[in-house]
Amino acid sequence: MARTELPVSIDLSHHINALSKSRHPSPLKDIIKYMAYDGMISFAGGLPHSSLFPFQTASIGVYPASTVLDPINPQAPEKLDIVNFSKAELDGQALSIATAMQYGSCAGDPSVIKWAADFTNIVFQPAYSDFEILLSGGNTDAWKKVVGLLSEQGDKILVEAHTYPSSQALWIPMGCEAVPVKVDSHGMRSDDMDAILTSWEANNPGVKKPHLLYIVPVGSNPTGSTMLAQRKKEIYDACVKHDVIICEDDPYFFLQYPEYDSGFAATPGSNASTPEEYLKSLAPSFLKYDFEGRVIRLDTFSKTLSPGNRLGYFVANPVFIERLLRATEVETQAPSGWSQLVVSNLLHNWGTNGYITWLANLRDQYRTRRDYMAIFSFVPPSAGMFIWARFYLTNSPRFLKIQDSGKSVDPEQEFLDYVWAELSKALVLLTPGSYYTPWQGKDKALTKTRGSEPGVGYFRLAFSMPTREEIYMGVNRMAKVLQDCWE
Amino acid sequence: MARTELPVSIDLSHHINALSKSRHPSPLKDIIKYMAYDGMISFAGGLPHSSLFPFQTASIGVYPASTVLDPINPQAPEKLDIVNFSKAELDGQALSIATAMQYGSCAGDPSVIKWAADFTNIVFQPAYSDFEILLSGGNTDAWKKVVGLLSEQGDKILVEAHTYPSSQALWIPMGCEAVPVKVDSHGMRSDDMDAILTSWEANNPGVKKPHLLYIVPVGSNPTGSTMLAQRKKEIYDACVKHDVIICEDDPYFFLQYPEYDSGFAATPGSNASTPEEYLKSLAPSFLKYDFEGRVIRLDTFSKTLSPGNRLGYFVANPVFIERLLRATEVETQAPSGWSQLVVSNLLHNWGTNGYITWLANLRDQYRTRRDYMAIFSFVPPSAGMFIWARFYLTNSPRFLKIQDSGKSVDPEQEFLDYVWAELSKALVLLTPGSYYTPWQGKDKALTKTRGSEPGVGYFRLAFSMPTREEIYMGVNRMAKVLQDCWE
Repeated sequence: MARTELPVSIDLSHHINALSKSRHPSPLKDIIKYMAYDGMISFAGGLPHSSLFPFQTASIGVYPASTVLDPINPQAPEKLDIVNFSKAELDGQALSIATAMQYGSCAGDPSVIKWAADFTNIVFQPAYSDFEILLSGGNTDAWKKVVGLLSEQGDKILVEAHTYPSSQALWIPMGCEAVPVKVDSHGMRSDDMDAILTSWEANNPGVKKPHLLYIVPVGSNPTGSTMLAQRKKEIYDACVKHDVIICEDDPYFFLQYPEYDSGFAATPGSNASTPEEYLKSLAPSFLKYDFEGRVIRLDTFSKTLSPGNRLGYFVANPVFIERLLRATEVETQAPSGWSQLVVSNLLHNWGTNGYITWLANLRDQYRTRRDYMAIFSFVPPSAGMFIWARFYLTNSPRFLKIQDSGKSVDPEQEFLDYVWAELSKALVLLTPGSYYTPWQGKDKALTKTRGSEPGVGYFRLAFSMPTREEIYMGVNRMAKVLQDCWE
Repeated sequence: MARTELPVSIDLSHHINALSKSRHPSPLKDIIKYMAYDGMISFAGGLPHSSLFPFQTASIGVYPASTVLDPINPQAPEKLDIVNFSKAELDGQALSIATAMQYGSCAGDPSVIKWAADFTNIVFQPAYSDFEILLSGGNTDAWKKVVGLLSEQGDKILVEAHTYPSSQALWIPMGCEAVPVKVDSHGMRSDDMDAILTSWEANNPGVKKPHLLYIVPVGSNPTGSTMLAQRKKEIYDACVKHDVIICEDDPYFFLQYPEYDSGFAATPGSNASTPEEYLKSLAPSFLKYDFEGRVIRLDTFSKTLSPGNRLGYFVANPVFIERLLRATEVETQAPSGWSQLVVSNLLHNWGTNGYITWLANLRDQYRTRRDYMAIFSFVPPSAGMFIWARFYLTNSPRFLKIQDSGKSVDPEQEFLDYVWAELSKALVLLTPGSYYTPWQGKDKALTKTRGSEPGVGYFRLAFSMPTREEIYMGVNRMAKVLQDCWE
């Protein structure tokens, strides 16, 4: 993957768990290299014959890469790019139908892998030379395989103080527990992480030290905060110091917004920038500081093209990629051939600069939606699709009554549940902040027992779906309900 | 799912393993039902906006369902069915692009689930009424989730005496081991399975009794044998007696062939039958006898449409389906939207009878290929894509020399490795039979120590890919090498 002036990854194989270590390559896959011999007649493969696949032609009509939509009333452009897929391989085309529909390498089609490797070099600029790419079925599949690679039953996993619930729903049944690290408006605090790990043995005698950090560093779900270059470097250095692997789950990387300016109404396309200027405006990935190969980056097309592709890729060191490939062989095989076919040919048609232009315009679209909603928020998100709203409960007589009655095991939660129910009765739906509480075991399941800040609660508001009118109407409904709840 | 005159499934939840038991529904998914309320403004979802997906139109050109191809020189028909996908939902159409590309139910799109439930009732006729459907990413993904549902570390798993290697590559790292059951030309022997389980405690004191049977009952990979109705009923009854769950991995169900008749050259289309006649010619699924809901059937479109779809579905009792859905939420999410879009619309376009006609013709195609290769085989396969060739080694002076030297830890394997290498030097590639040996632990890794039949070896030959000319040429090359190896 070029860039040979950079160091190669160090040996981090001691992080691999027992189950992953004991996987062997599938014997059937070994035979594949013999099939390529000139004149070989293979009775070995057992592939169905591609002439017997019913799919002969396919095409999609897509927005031109430079499309700028009206954020208030988005209408598809009249002229679409038509991308035709060929049945068999053609010069100058990406993946063909026949190849996409056949069993193939579990790593993914070479056309997609090569694109991802080139794109990674251009956009993320890893600080080591021998990184590799493996396709995934999106970041849910990818995170499942990272836990399957690194975590033993009962491990402690470092996470942000508010964390994505589906990611922990995976490992809670394994008896794992979260070690929440404090966050501020720049994301996870490196001083807190260093302090936790430095004093680990003293504070947790006999408990295995965490060696995996799960983080959504850009447009953190739910807090919306984004970790800038300096903080990322500090977190990375702390991970080197304490030998921690970073899993960078980064679906919102390309949706980084400029600071919210209430006097300035953003208009998509108005602040048009070159692809280079757009890329320069984005905070770097952890890969930029990763001179050892201890970052496993999870990239996905879910937020940039559409979730239904169920397609993404790992960027990691060759030892981790090889083990992840072994798991892929027996757990899923390669992602859908249709998804690979569509994405490979779309990116080939748009070209890399076209795709980056698409991303820049997409960022402007979601930024406009954020600006509509940010009218009532005090912490405008710098990336992603969410506003993380903090509420002070001690101003509410109703909350104080619940608290003072002494009858509630968790007064904060009881009051917030009531507020959520009142909001949905008034037909406005928020996501309860409690969904994002790191799971630290049953003993720490209450606001008090886990040591959360008393008298404070959170809701998450998504601005990706509603129209401007719906946002205004929804915010009005919220205002009324909140007034009632706080009297 | 209709058919209410049938019994409902019994409670089999004691088979679910500890990890699966402790999964909770994702809290985010709970909120979805509130979103459907009239007039609700949702700030909860966090879905990307579908107007910002670049995909606007799509279409595929497919063979008409009634296509009959020339088996010697398969050429695509001149007239294709064009299936257009609409952006938004349209009356009378299956899945739309906008829905397929958005996050959706992890169970899969209702259009595909409904099709699969109807098809299951028509073709497989389960003997209980409350079976349910869950989409999978093909049978690799599905088997992974079955093991994740039922098996604990170190469990013993019942398998055929020759078994599919990738299925055991999944659980070998979990410390599980195979309990091989004898097979004859009708597949797994029910008397042997009953004997193993009846004497389990006596022969394996203190070892947990197997409670999961993994089986490819039609066109067994590699042996090619097919289990007919009577044997399936016997195996099912033994599983009831011993409280065993059956995982029916059945990708070759629709490729069941009539007996091989060397005097009769099969021609696709020549024995055209109605969809009803074709279905009647097929041995039933285990579902037909499953009055308790103890069969987990794995269906896939990999062999009937193409592997690149990475799309299939589970048929199982509601308790198992619910737990498999919990795993799907955190491990993979729903299969690719493109795959669901294509398959849903194709089946909608062809109609159920059209699809069954397609399957009948496909069966005839592969049957013709089998007949080409069966010219040298003594056990013509009755389904699937493989011939399982048995070799008698004791006729070979070279084998006897290796055996008598006393220097080889496994003379059978050493000789078979030599034969395989000679064959590939002569440019004909077979799959070694050893790949299909059930893994019973390191102590039973040699022909002798695992008690395999001495002086016998196997190769698997696939007839799905080569042309008739390649088959004849390959068989000639084989004959020469085998002559040399047996002198």
